[in-house]
Amino acid sequence: MQIALAQLNFHVGNFEQNTQKIIQAIEEAKAAGADLIVFPELAVTAYPPLDFLEFDDFIERCYIAIEKIAASCTGIAAIVGCPSRNPVIEGKNLYNSAFFLNDGNIQSVIHKALLPTYDIFDEYRYFEPGRKFECVSFKGQKIALTICEDLWNMEEDPMYIHSPMEDLIKENPSLIINIAASPFDYQHAQKRKAILLRNVKQNQLPLLYVNHVGAQTEIIFDGGSLFYNASGELIHEGPYFEEKIIYIDTKNPVLSTENKKEKYELIYQALTLGIKDYFSKMGFSKAILGLSGGVDSALVTVLACDVLGSENVLPVMMPSAFSSSHSVSDSEELCNNLGIKPEKIEINPTFETLLHSLKPLFGDRPFDVTEENLQARIRGNMLMALSNKFGHILLNTSNKSELAVGYGTLYGDMCGGLSVIGDLYKTEVYELCNYINRNKEIIPKNIITKAPSAELRPGQKDTDSLPPYDVLDKILYHYIELRKGPDRIIEDGFDKQLVHRILKMVNTNEYKRRQLAPVLRISAKAFGFGRRMPVAAKYLS
Amino acid sequence: MQIALAQLNFHVGNFEQNTQKIIQAIEEAKAAGADLIVFPELAVTAYPPLDFLEFDDFIERCYIAIEKIAASCTGIAAIVGCPSRNPVIEGKNLYNSAFFLNDGNIQSVIHKALLPTYDIFDEYRYFEPGRKFECVSFKGQKIALTICEDLWNMEEDPMYIHSPMEDLIKENPSLIINIAASPFDYQHAQKRKAILLRNVKQNQLPLLYVNHVGAQTEIIFDGGSLFYNASGELIHEGPYFEEKIIYIDTKNPVLSTENKKEKYELIYQALTLGIKDYFSKMGFSKAILGLSGGVDSALVTVLACDVLGSENVLPVMMPSAFSSSHSVSDSEELCNNLGIKPEKIEINPTFETLLHSLKPLFGDRPFDVTEENLQARIRGNMLMALSNKFGHILLNTSNKSELAVGYGTLYGDMCGGLSVIGDLYKTEVYELCNYINRNKEIIPKNIITKAPSAELRPGQKDTDSLPPYDVLDKILYHYIELRKGPDRIIEDGFDKQLVHRILKMVNTNEYKRRQLAPVLRISAKAFGFGRRMPVAAKYLS
Repeated sequence: MQIALAQLNFHVGNFEQNTQKIIQAIEEAKAAGADLIVFPELAVTAYPPLDFLEFDDFIERCYIAIEKIAASCTGIAAIVGCPSRNPVIEGKNLYNSAFFLNDGNIQSVIHKALLPTYDIFDEYRYFEPGRKFECVSFKGQKIALTICEDLWNMEEDPMYIHSPMEDLIKENPSLIINIAASPFDYQHAQKRKAILLRNVKQNQLPLLYVNHVGAQTEIIFDGGSLFYNASGELIHEGPYFEEKIIYIDTKNPVLSTENKKEKYELIYQALTLGIKDYFSKMGFSKAILGLSGGVDSALVTVLACDVLGSENVLPVMMPSAFSSSHSVSDSEELCNNLGIKPEKIEINPTFETLLHSLKPLFGDRPFDVTEENLQARIRGNMLMALSNKFGHILLNTSNKSELAVGYGTLYGDMCGGLSVIGDLYKTEVYELCNYINRNKEIIPKNIITKAPSAELRPGQKDTDSLPPYDVLDKILYHYIELRKGPDRIIEDGFDKQLVHRILKMVNTNEYKRRQLAPVLRISAKAFGFGRRMPVAAKYLS
Repeated sequence: MQIALAQLNFHVGNFEQNTQKIIQAIEEAKAAGADLIVFPELAVTAYPPLDFLEFDDFIERCYIAIEKIAASCTGIAAIVGCPSRNPVIEGKNLYNSAFFLNDGNIQSVIHKALLPTYDIFDEYRYFEPGRKFECVSFKGQKIALTICEDLWNMEEDPMYIHSPMEDLIKENPSLIINIAASPFDYQHAQKRKAILLRNVKQNQLPLLYVNHVGAQTEIIFDGGSLFYNASGELIHEGPYFEEKIIYIDTKNPVLSTENKKEKYELIYQALTLGIKDYFSKMGFSKAILGLSGGVDSALVTVLACDVLGSENVLPVMMPSAFSSSHSVSDSEELCNNLGIKPEKIEINPTFETLLHSLKPLFGDRPFDVTEENLQARIRGNMLMALSNKFGHILLNTSNKSELAVGYGTLYGDMCGGLSVIGDLYKTEVYELCNYINRNKEIIPKNIITKAPSAELRPGQKDTDSLPPYDVLDKILYHYIELRKGPDRIIEDGFDKQLVHRILKMVNTNEYKRRQLAPVLRISAKAFGFGRRMPVAAKYLS
């Protein structure tokens, strides 16, 4: 059978564009001689549609789209992910479904049984789990059609008490198809392949897997659609971070090469796709950001230029009395390397005026964190003013380490529409800079090697209030990604007092992260939507 | 049987304090001659513990607490809500459980079957549903012990395919007990009573219901614990918004009066409890806020003074060249009524200095929304500076109408640690002001009657860019609370163009609400945690 896997980039709620893209792919696949074209999970709405699913109007538009798509399925069949209404009164009102379209009609509708409800996934919020499992018949073959998580019930710690394949295999299918919305993290492709391979081996069936590609606000889909033969050989892996219609001849498959990319190449591609799609899906083209002379803003500047073009990126230097001379010169060197001209605005006059206005209330109280934050917030205000006046979107440059411990100013350097590197620990920021510089020095060496500083008071260094980042980041990783408590982290060899101090900082700064921009997710546990923490709590704090 | 209902205020993650409070209540109930004391759902952790549940360390502390509480149960039994570990490998790792403690031990553990996963609820994120149902035996009686949602499967639109009471009733229990975490909204108590009464009538059994009281960041629990006799008479209703141990003699019950409170009395009490618990649970005592002369900041000032005491509230007037003279005089009158002295800071010097610094980039471009936002952000910066210097928490004064349509400045008037009235439409803000003024004019009449204005440009009125609030709020209510699409709202008699314009404003301003402080929830659909919308989407926009 000739099967096309449509690894495409959809746009949440954009029915017109998504429907058009699906129909166009169907026509293209038909022209290429495919018998069947397979689209990802919830392709019609894009993933995740979130609470739009609670609007009847939204579901009505899904059905209109599916009818239109079905009508285009003549001479070719299609599998299309789309929500469907639960016809009985019991249970939730919707299913997360795969529509099998053939001969201009809806031939059958399969419902997802295992509904991921963890991290960024909220599927049981909207969907009733499917409980009846039947293969789809097509051209004399039986297809075990499953949706993403349906194949993810892991033997060693099954999250669900039943797996749909247990029933489907009884019908002797000749093929497994899985339509997915499986978001990127830098370890996810390996995990995904291991799990799919296990399904192949267990059932001794070939498996076709199609994934979304593209970013939906903070969630990035990497594609990497797959075809395994019945012996568990990986015959084809689709590209990462690119749209592609992949043609598979299930009888006479052509072996392709597996994607081999190292961590920082993956992260680089994920972040640039994240920026690209945020701008294109929001309808913007120009970015602005504050250039401090530090490594975080330098990295975000490079990423933004690579995506949007140097001519669409406006870096702004806003030195204060506490800025070192190299902050400006390093930034200028970076801009020179990128072929962009930064703007420079002095914040001191505003800082002085603000202090003067506040003087009657402040009296002779000493300089403290207040004055540090004031500077950061003046910069935020200036950047937002430029954003408002010229239509640039402000990119946030906070990293995961500082967001974790609250080492940043709310409404100051925490401003921005999108947090580009908020899921990279500081040590990962350095690694990504080295990756960018792998062929040629784009980010000046001095920016990478100098001691990090917020430069908000004389001679300030990050290490004045934080442990070295290589220690800090390991403790944070144990707590945030691995969800270890203090005792287990201390057992791993970290200083007891330090561990308690860091965990307390993480928990007591939740209030700041609640007001953070969406963070491009590149790890298995990013701040934001997938990590839900109480604010007014008292635990390890 | 003598049963005590412990309607108490717990603190998320504060095991020490929660455990102590539970043990103290057990001792008090024992001294009062109770046979059994009943605590709310997840009393040990407080509700909702959110992703803390994913930490083994956190669960370990739950078990330590339960063991300690069990040890104190001699001569009295207790039902205590607490997470428990799922002993089998299949399914999620935890149950949401009710521990039945007696004779110093854990006698049995009942698991919640129906896991609310909608609005602010994420229970299937953490818990495996209970599937085995057995009554608890105590003093020769069989108790049908259920947890909150277990009784909420509604006949007319059941969200779950099975109800635990269908099984439990077969054992002929003599009593239903329901331990709950049922958050307040201004219509919820009526809904709750209707549903519990239906359970009573269906099963012809008396029902004891105990709820949390107190606020956990944005979620407010109102208490209102209940006792119905088997004929469906409401014998006792616990107070709203107050901690109380309620004693019920199930054999010879004493009839108490039902709570009768109108909408704005409820909202007033909910909001003041919300402020009180936010401050006490975060460890703060003083609030600051900007006083614009408008109705929103006037209302929040009154609420804050009522909770924290006038001496702990610092209102700051920050007039600009566009502020009307009555803005300052009205604010001063309000402060006079409240016995507080506001501070006054001019923003013009800072505004002029900022404009001067930005002039080389702005050139001769005309005054636009940039300059409006600049003023709002200077105010935000000043308030945060005072907050930093003196330790006041900044209260946000945005209302639901303006948050809905994006009529506010991110990092400006949207600053603040807690959004006090962000779940009240503008028309509800007026109603609550009238409630506050019911006996005596606290909020000056002129603040309530004058036309609302942001005063960010000469002669500005809200109605320059928005329809009148009575029309706007109705359209918003249809869209946000009732989740109607545009066609259905237009069918209800609203102008077609206006409906499309407003819905587009709501959807395209999601990016602002993503960075909003927690909003005290008083309606069935508040912005924040319980309303999850994509940012980079294109639907009705």
